[in-house]
Amino acid sequence: MPFQVLTAAALPAYLATLPPMQERFTDFEALDVAEVGDGNVNFVFLVTQRGAPERTVCVKQAVPYLRCVGESWPLTRHRMDVEVRALREFGALCPQHVPAVYAADSEMSLVVMQRLCNHRILRLGLIDGLVYPRMSDHISTYLARTLFFTSDLYLAPDAKKAAVAGASNPELCRITEDLVFTHPYDDSPTNAYPPGLPPRAIERLQRNPPLRAAVGEMKYAFMTATEARLHGDLHTGSVMANAEETFVIDPEFSFYGPMGFDVGAFIANLFLAYVAQEHRQRDAGRDPAPYREWLLQSAVETWEGFERKFLALWREHEADGTGFIGRDLDGESAEVFRAAFMRHVFADTLGFAACKMMRRIVGLAKVADIAGITDVAARTLAEVRALRIAEHLILSRHAFGSIGAVVAAVERLGATPLDA
Amino acid sequence: MPFQVLTAAALPAYLATLPPMQERFTDFEALDVAEVGDGNVNFVFLVTQRGAPERTVCVKQAVPYLRCVGESWPLTRHRMDVEVRALREFGALCPQHVPAVYAADSEMSLVVMQRLCNHRILRLGLIDGLVYPRMSDHISTYLARTLFFTSDLYLAPDAKKAAVAGASNPELCRITEDLVFTHPYDDSPTNAYPPGLPPRAIERLQRNPPLRAAVGEMKYAFMTATEARLHGDLHTGSVMANAEETFVIDPEFSFYGPMGFDVGAFIANLFLAYVAQEHRQRDAGRDPAPYREWLLQSAVETWEGFERKFLALWREHEADGTGFIGRDLDGESAEVFRAAFMRHVFADTLGFAACKMMRRIVGLAKVADIAGITDVAARTLAEVRALRIAEHLILSRHAFGSIGAVVAAVERLGATPLDA
Repeated sequence: MPFQVLTAAALPAYLATLPPMQERFTDFEALDVAEVGDGNVNFVFLVTQRGAPERTVCVKQAVPYLRCVGESWPLTRHRMDVEVRALREFGALCPQHVPAVYAADSEMSLVVMQRLCNHRILRLGLIDGLVYPRMSDHISTYLARTLFFTSDLYLAPDAKKAAVAGASNPELCRITEDLVFTHPYDDSPTNAYPPGLPPRAIERLQRNPPLRAAVGEMKYAFMTATEARLHGDLHTGSVMANAEETFVIDPEFSFYGPMGFDVGAFIANLFLAYVAQEHRQRDAGRDPAPYREWLLQSAVETWEGFERKFLALWREHEADGTGFIGRDLDGESAEVFRAAFMRHVFADTLGFAACKMMRRIVGLAKVADIAGITDVAARTLAEVRALRIAEHLILSRHAFGSIGAVVAAVERLGATPLDA
Repeated sequence: MPFQVLTAAALPAYLATLPPMQERFTDFEALDVAEVGDGNVNFVFLVTQRGAPERTVCVKQAVPYLRCVGESWPLTRHRMDVEVRALREFGALCPQHVPAVYAADSEMSLVVMQRLCNHRILRLGLIDGLVYPRMSDHISTYLARTLFFTSDLYLAPDAKKAAVAGASNPELCRITEDLVFTHPYDDSPTNAYPPGLPPRAIERLQRNPPLRAAVGEMKYAFMTATEARLHGDLHTGSVMANAEETFVIDPEFSFYGPMGFDVGAFIANLFLAYVAQEHRQRDAGRDPAPYREWLLQSAVETWEGFERKFLALWREHEADGTGFIGRDLDGESAEVFRAAFMRHVFADTLGFAACKMMRRIVGLAKVADIAGITDVAARTLAEVRALRIAEHLILSRHAFGSIGAVVAAVERLGATPLDA
């Protein structure tokens, strides 16, 4: 049907027109609909049949503007096609961590998908200090599988080039190019400087030639390195989890880009949680050390798990001795190449993590972990520390020998005093 | 008209059907046609109106197979569309160094273009020991303009992404991926080992984990780095020149790839000429030193000219203080980024130059500079030296501080004895 913005009232009748919904629901007159979109970009509805709680779906509709700003910030509805294709591709590679797509309607810019009933946005759980014992294992599996199987290391060259073309997403990439890689560093009017952040902390970002050159290099890699199909926005708000399960949602920013961008996005958000939890745990009357230790350990396990699983997939794919570099005549060359490759992804991961952290402090979009701290001094301390960590990560991204060394630096710089 | 392989006899009648030819020729009955294709891939005809030598064109037709192998090696005729588009785009950016396109016929896989009457394939001139006083200046201009104006440093993000999609050329890229980056190093049956080359020189290439890992990194960059629209095959056989003018022809391998690939291809071929000319100059009764010095000086001038002109275009484009990294608040950040950027292109240039050199020694396609040396010992010496230079360039590509240091290494390793 031609595009129209759906309402909760209109949704049951619309769903009844979709053939796949006939087996999902038995009574379209008895559907309860709740609008739960968090307000930034899209509308999200949860639909449940009364008396049959297992008969439930999630409906997400993209409207042709940025919802939180209004029609003055137009956004193509085409992004829903991107999201549906990405959900299907990632779901095929990693069904246990991607919600199933039941139906999609390109004209309506809408997807009907698996409702995650017992899962919560990971960021909110982390803010509350919850431990997710399987998070790092699941996210590293998701990263390893989605990045390996969409890369030149696995796909035939023609298939990979066709996949790159099919994943083009210039409009959403432009948002990242501007909001992650440009505006935070050039004093753009889109920035939102936190109330307590000292001007010298902002200047340290914006009038710092080595830092700005490094950010430029990451931006250039983001724009030119067609390594793998990325999620493109893999922060902790794009994950829904509980103690047993982890799902990665909202891949509307998906495109072919550098692998480290997805890995770095997730790790950056763990580091942001880390600097926030010093205050949040104390505020809740708890010793911050154990939870913060878990957050850093999760960063270690995310990287190490990703690396181990990615390499395992790669070695298995090349088990016959022939692979990306050709036949491995001496039995060592493929491993030496793999090690060099992982060093490259690791440096990218740190560089992108840093950009993601910096933009969340001074740029337009915040993270609630930090921005939600009402004590201005405590919030500012977390912000200053996040910036200091990010600066070190991006400038030293080629020098770190291990994620352990990175985490040690995060701990050290995470204790930066406010007047440093 | 539907595709058919043109013959010299059929060409005048065909040309008469093309409207743009009506102003080029006044008598289609009086056209002399000579087939001059060098035999690898395409047919090339030179057409001149008798009694009017200024009425002349060059016609190039792609046939659906690799001409030198035959119909058993099919190649899409689509490559002529790629070539025509590349000729037009490069011609618009650099008309003084790209032959003008008069007419193109996609169905016939054919282009009618400016005939370069007084120019000779550069490789043949170099083999004969000719000095081209404007070569480095012209090639560096061509490289700077074609690479800068097609990159993210100049184009708007959407335009650049559309350009990448429009320049897709998977079939020809595959040839490079195989013949430049894979087969030479894995003892592929496509290799053609020179008669005198010692097995240890081949093993040094093929059973050398750091070298093969480095080649893998260059291959990966070739396949993933959509930096600029490349010529894609910029060796000295793709250049026609005389003392005053220089034209870059045959961009059928054009696609969006890493800038260093084009720069490196050209410099690699100067280094191959360098190792060949030790013997060739002596054989002609001349002291090899001056000509070899000119070749190395040309490599220096090609890189330095490219860097200087590229930076000049970039600075001019960002003269208002806003550019790729955003607003330059401190007045130094843009320059620091530019310097880092050029270091990256420089390292890529050396790495790609090395791959191009190695494949020309052990791979399927040779360069006549070396393969045309009939004295086997002299040819072998040139080959061993080329491989030694290439090995050093790729392994130390991030360590060289200047093209001067590179050329010093080329001189040193270019004196490697055969039994080294």
